[in-house]
Amino acid sequence: MTIEVGINGYGTIGKRVADAVRAQPDMEVVGVAKTRPNFEAEQAVANDFPLYAAVPERVGQFDEAGIELAGEVEELVQDSEIVVDTTPSGIGAENKAMYQEYDTPALYQGGEDADLVDVSFNARSNFAEAEGAGHTRVVSCNTTGLSRLIAALEDEYGVEKVRATLVRRGGDPAQSSRGPINDTLPDPVTIPSHHGPDVNTIFPDLDIDTLGMKVPATLTHTHSVNVELTDETDTETVRELLEGESRLFVIPDHMGIDGSGKLKEFALDSGRPRGDVWENAIWGESITVEGGDELYLFQAIHQESDVVPENVDAIRAVLGTADRRESIERTNEALGMGLGR
Amino acid sequence: MTIEVGINGYGTIGKRVADAVRAQPDMEVVGVAKTRPNFEAEQAVANDFPLYAAVPERVGQFDEAGIELAGEVEELVQDSEIVVDTTPSGIGAENKAMYQEYDTPALYQGGEDADLVDVSFNARSNFAEAEGAGHTRVVSCNTTGLSRLIAALEDEYGVEKVRATLVRRGGDPAQSSRGPINDTLPDPVTIPSHHGPDVNTIFPDLDIDTLGMKVPATLTHTHSVNVELTDETDTETVRELLEGESRLFVIPDHMGIDGSGKLKEFALDSGRPRGDVWENAIWGESITVEGGDELYLFQAIHQESDVVPENVDAIRAVLGTADRRESIERTNEALGMGLGR
Amino acid sequence: MTIEVGINGYGTIGKRVADAVRAQPDMEVVGVAKTRPNFEAEQAVANDFPLYAAVPERVGQFDEAGIELAGEVEELVQDSEIVVDTTPSGIGAENKAMYQEYDTPALYQGGEDADLVDVSFNARSNFAEAEGAGHTRVVSCNTTGLSRLIAALEDEYGVEKVRATLVRRGGDPAQSSRGPINDTLPDPVTIPSHHGPDVNTIFPDLDIDTLGMKVPATLTHTHSVNVELTDETDTETVRELLEGESRLFVIPDHMGIDGSGKLKEFALDSGRPRGDVWENAIWGESITVEGGDELYLFQAIHQESDVVPENVDAIRAVLGTADRRESIERTNEALGMGLGR
Amino acid sequence: MTIEVGINGYGTIGKRVADAVRAQPDMEVVGVAKTRPNFEAEQAVANDFPLYAAVPERVGQFDEAGIELAGEVEELVQDSEIVVDTTPSGIGAENKAMYQEYDTPALYQGGEDADLVDVSFNARSNFAEAEGAGHTRVVSCNTTGLSRLIAALEDEYGVEKVRATLVRRGGDPAQSSRGPINDTLPDPVTIPSHHGPDVNTIFPDLDIDTLGMKVPATLTHTHSVNVELTDETDTETVRELLEGESRLFVIPDHMGIDGSGKLKEFALDSGRPRGDVWENAIWGESITVEGGDELYLFQAIHQESDVVPENVDAIRAVLGTADRRESIERTNEALGMGLGR
Ligand SMILES: NC(=O)c1ccc[n+]([C@@H]2O[C@H](COP(=O)([O-])OP(=O)(O)OC[C@H]3O[C@@H](n4cnc5c(N)ncnc54)[C@H](O)[C@@H]3O)[C@@H](O)[C@H]2O)c1
Ligand SMILES: NC(=O)c1ccc[n+]([C@@H]2O[C@H](COP(=O)([O-])OP(=O)(O)OC[C@H]3O[C@@H](n4cnc5c(N)ncnc54)[C@H](O)[C@@H]3O)[C@@H](O)[C@H]2O)c1
Ligand SMILES: NC(=O)c1ccc[n+]([C@@H]2O[C@H](COP(=O)([O-])OP(=O)(O)OC[C@H]3O[C@@H](n4cnc5c(N)ncnc54)[C@H](O)[C@@H]3O)[C@@H](O)[C@H]2O)c1
Ligand SMILES: NC(=O)c1ccc[n+]([C@@H]2O[C@H](COP(=O)([O-])OP(=O)(O)OC[C@H]3O[C@@H](n4cnc5c(N)ncnc54)[C@H](O)[C@@H]3O)[C@@H](O)[C@H]2O)c1
Repeated sequence: MTIEVGINGYGTIGKRVADAVRAQPDMEVVGVAKTRPNFEAEQAVANDFPLYAAVPERVGQFDEAGIELAGEVEELVQDSEIVVDTTPSGIGAENKAMYQEYDTPALYQGGEDADLVDVSFNARSNFAEAEGAGHTRVVSCNTTGLSRLIAALEDEYGVEKVRATLVRRGGDPAQSSRGPINDTLPDPVTIPSHHGPDVNTIFPDLDIDTLGMKVPATLTHTHSVNVELTDETDTETVRELLEGESRLFVIPDHMGIDGSGKLKEFALDSGRPRGDVWENAIWGESITVEGGDELYLFQAIHQESDVVPENVDAIRAVLGTADRRESIERTNEALGMGLGR
Repeated sequence: MTIEVGINGYGTIGKRVADAVRAQPDMEVVGVAKTRPNFEAEQAVANDFPLYAAVPERVGQFDEAGIELAGEVEELVQDSEIVVDTTPSGIGAENKAMYQEYDTPALYQGGEDADLVDVSFNARSNFAEAEGAGHTRVVSCNTTGLSRLIAALEDEYGVEKVRATLVRRGGDPAQSSRGPINDTLPDPVTIPSHHGPDVNTIFPDLDIDTLGMKVPATLTHTHSVNVELTDETDTETVRELLEGESRLFVIPDHMGIDGSGKLKEFALDSGRPRGDVWENAIWGESITVEGGDELYLFQAIHQESDVVPENVDAIRAVLGTADRRESIERTNEALGMGLGR
Repeated sequence: MTIEVGINGYGTIGKRVADAVRAQPDMEVVGVAKTRPNFEAEQAVANDFPLYAAVPERVGQFDEAGIELAGEVEELVQDSEIVVDTTPSGIGAENKAMYQEYDTPALYQGGEDADLVDVSFNARSNFAEAEGAGHTRVVSCNTTGLSRLIAALEDEYGVEKVRATLVRRGGDPAQSSRGPINDTLPDPVTIPSHHGPDVNTIFPDLDIDTLGMKVPATLTHTHSVNVELTDETDTETVRELLEGESRLFVIPDHMGIDGSGKLKEFALDSGRPRGDVWENAIWGESITVEGGDELYLFQAIHQESDVVPENVDAIRAVLGTADRRESIERTNEALGMGLGR
Repeated sequence: MTIEVGINGYGTIGKRVADAVRAQPDMEVVGVAKTRPNFEAEQAVANDFPLYAAVPERVGQFDEAGIELAGEVEELVQDSEIVVDTTPSGIGAENKAMYQEYDTPALYQGGEDADLVDVSFNARSNFAEAEGAGHTRVVSCNTTGLSRLIAALEDEYGVEKVRATLVRRGGDPAQSSRGPINDTLPDPVTIPSHHGPDVNTIFPDLDIDTLGMKVPATLTHTHSVNVELTDETDTETVRELLEGESRLFVIPDHMGIDGSGKLKEFALDSGRPRGDVWENAIWGESITVEGGDELYLFQAIHQESDVVPENVDAIRAVLGTADRRESIERTNEALGMGLGR
């Protein structure tokens, strides 16, 4: 008995979630919905994903492009046990009524507001809270990256305070109209950025301040992180702790990976689909504990893919088909988590 | 009886050639040589390519990094029927004596001078000329891209004159220290650029003028091409001709691929290893014949990979194990040439 | 008796035109109109340009920001002998009725359609045609750059055909949201681009094909130009011809200016306001005549400023207060045209 | 009696220091030394700065380029009361012996090691310490930017701890070969970066941790800064404090300056030579005090120019011709410090 999953929105996140769901032994993709015919729509069909028109008025455009449709999005919602909504920011909110109408539980992405949903989700941090939820939000790429790190530290040492500067990529690699071209922007210019409060949807009591910036790069976000720990420790011990986490990739010193470019090259060389880096990539050499309780490190977050395994886990969490440990292991195993291992 | 191929230099081109050679039914990778241990070296070992130290003095560095070596590069040269030299520009010339010493025929890349070798090579254009050559140069990514296009046009219509502006990427995606960051440079500033004469190593009698520029992008070179044809034709006919060429990918209009970014996204979505685009990617909408005999078009050249199938063919060409048609078909079949087909 | 000039739209082009008009002995700036209060609006006031609200509804926003207004745009139009409209593309068309209402002749910029106006204008090429025109369009930065070059060649040798590839900057330096970040785009993908027909508004009988591209750079457009000449000549003679043109800056070989970055650095070092390069910057080393009648060269076009002197001349051309030679000389003298002289 | 200043190295920093020194009523530029003839050398001559050959062997190159020399660098050193060495990193150390030989006190730049000199210098922070020093280092652009901010906070509240992430530009605007093109790099990857210890050359007892990154932008460095203060305060009070500092430019909220691009545009619009921003540019909206004693803010540091006024002050500090207050006022007055005032 496989879980029947519908995916509404087949773009950067949606196409990756579709592949990841298909790779799970206990899941099946009922279909994917898209608004416009383009190479991604053709690829969906080429990959045997039944394609549904997200906007009924545009059915004709698919016909013209010679792309066969399986139906319209409402049918997909009806036929799915759960829907993963991977439409652009704000569209998920518009779609909520449709999911409610068909009584289909839905997952949303980080572009939606926290108060749209019953629960915000990160597998490592609060898996169990999503059970039975009608509307669940898989937190954004940045929040996912911070949560995974914080969860590990919180469990082991306790966390007094987190300060993080998020140096964000201006756009994804295929987004040809987004900038900036040659600029560095405080974004938002007010402090703290919205990322801190978003982490608080996962860790309600955490003391965290985040600062956001935007730069002309497409490959990853890069975080400089400072964590004040409750219990004392040292650099080597923290490093080992992080190396033991399945969704953290601690970059070995001798690899010569100096930034996002070589990181993605390594992922491509490793055969990762689309060169995806599902794990937080933490520079091993950067992990530094000062004075016993103050940790610093740099991590790269592959914005296009780190939320993908989280969506897979959220499906099981919502439907109650596995507990945290089982789900994470199953997802990891099916995807091939563990870069460089 | 498979051809035993050694690969000296395991970087951007070398690692791709290694994978492509391994994919051929009639070839086998004896080993690869590298100068320094880094993630690429580790990956070579992870992929079961016997790894040889290119510089004997550095053997210790591999030991320290815990990377096992199969030997030193001279052994690799001795044990190979043919060596593909994919070392950085100018190093191939230094290595020539070693290949001569062991009487091993060698392929070099476009970074080497034309007069280093017996023959410059492009599979579509002059396959047969390489038979029995001791030293063969697979021409550069840009020259390969131009040659494939010119060969098709020359065969069908005759070519009076080619004018091309080559808007070149500043560096490959993982080359973190190359620029420019925010600049557009005539490069070289003198006209014609060296690319035209390089095309003449393949088409000695061709009248061709090229202009080179460099821009802050990493994904592809992009050519604006103007060709005066001998025989008259029209836009639709040329388009069909180009669509019929196995190493030209004519981008369909409705795909929504507006530049290098979406082109690479499409290649990644299509499951291409490393997102490689071995074919010239010609924008279908750009193909325009004016006045019956003047052709214009834009093409993107994926500098990291378009020479890869050419290296594979050059192996067979030099050793005389297949003729042009057979070799190209076998290479294409083994790699999965034909993006979007 | 000075000419009273109003400037509607105080952005990249408008603020430069305002300064250039003010620098003319025979002109005066009546005022400038702007839609929103920001640093440019403050600067207008700091520079003693009477500031008018372009959108009556937003008067309050200026009040809140503490920026004093001289009135609303209609008053400015009424009080001006001529208006230079430097609003964003397409807004000029909306403003036309207002200029007609007050019977004020208007200049528009290259973002407007050619058929909005009575005449399209380039000082070097067709100065006299604008006399008495109600609605005149100063052609775009790219068309201005091509026209200046073509005019010189046409006068001296005759021009058979022009082919140009325009490698365009993605956005101006202060446009923080424009991309691309890491992409090279045929733009438009169809050939010829609209630039050729635009040049034909200045040279109606010229045979010209242009190809447009867009790259992640902000400093200049860069053109690779090919011109088939009617009469024969040689490299040195063409170079001298171009060096003799007052709005062409032939970059000397020994200056070490390798691209847009160093070009702008040179302009800044030379004390140019805002580092502006009003002239086409043609790389001297690139000027090449092949076979006696085929010219190639590279030129950089500083999109933010090359149309500025043309706007100044267009004012005199429309009002008939000077002939071409006089106007160009006066403008050049007042601005300090002649980089590196 | 004006101070006779020689400037060795006429590049990004040197040419700015030359102009700034010339602008001082109590100083005079004896000459500038340069290694190679290029546009900057020509500009030095055009600006009537006597030009000296920095490398005797290259005198001929200047002759060939038709650039007149006033002599060789040793003569310049001999004829100067003080030399400002603005040669590339590491060359200053090589030049030290020459300055010692002629007993000429020297200023060096941030590219040199702290232990090359008697004292590291920042005008606001430790002016008096440089009096009589033979060898003085004006600290780097980043250290200057941090020191100015810290000095103001330290004087008013006391500083417990500083944590700063320095998002550094990859290269200056005219450095066409520096990258990265599309990458974000921890640089250095180890924590803390060298910037913290460099700040300690100015504030020996300060507790400061810095993290460095490198991005594909040329206009400014941008710092995200966190300061734990000793005494309690609030956002508005800190903002007023910073607004009162002559070399801090607190960007007003309503200006619409969202990043480095618009900041530089504003400086150019304001008529600043070369668009220089000598002040730290602190986003007013970003200034935030949390919990009474924890300050956050973003600041942009214009790497090409913030050290320029510091060099001017260091001249007076070393020679003892003015005290801190007098010197800073005189420098500010002569340059026109106070952007947006
Ligand atoms: N790209 C990232 O870096 C990233 C990272 C994490 C989370 N997210 C979040 O994931 C969500 C999706 O982002 P994305 O980057 O995949 O966007 P995208 O633009 O790449 O893809 C969205 C897809 O939805 C389709 N679509 C648009 N309107 C639709 C509608 N009404 N119904 C159905 N489909 C529609 C589009 O055609 C497109 O295929 C957003 O909430 C975003 O904030 C994005
Ligand atoms: N990257 C491109 O865009 C591209 C395209 C076409 C052709 N080429 C040509 O291919 C050749 C290789 O370029 P690349 O981009 O793969 O370079 P690369 O730097 O990515 O890889 C070169 C490899 O050779 C190794 N190496 C260095 N010195 C060596 C030595 N003495 N012996 C053995 N190995 C050594 C390096 O460690 C590295 O692994 C050059 O001639 C280049 O001009 C490159
Ligand atoms: N920037 C360039 O590279 C460039 C080069 C040549 C020609 N042009 C053309 O010049 C024109 C202006 O372009 P720009 O780059 O200066 O634009 P811009 O956006 O920098 O400036 C436009 C100004 O007009 C103001 N504005 C907006 N709506 C207005 C309205 N309704 N009434 C009055 N003012 C209004 C804006 O506030 C802004 O100050 C366009 O036609 C453009 O195509 C631009
Ligand atoms: N550019 C910046 O962002 C920046 C900021 C602050 C401090 N600095 C420091 O200022 C110093 C100068 O840097 P820059 O950016 O001006 O460098 P630059 O390369 O722009 O200029 C250096 C100048 O020195 C000349 N030169 C080279 N060798 C010389 C020699 N042996 N003798 C005399 N002149 C020689 C070069 O021709 C050039 O004109 C370095 O220590 C650097 O670290 C630079």
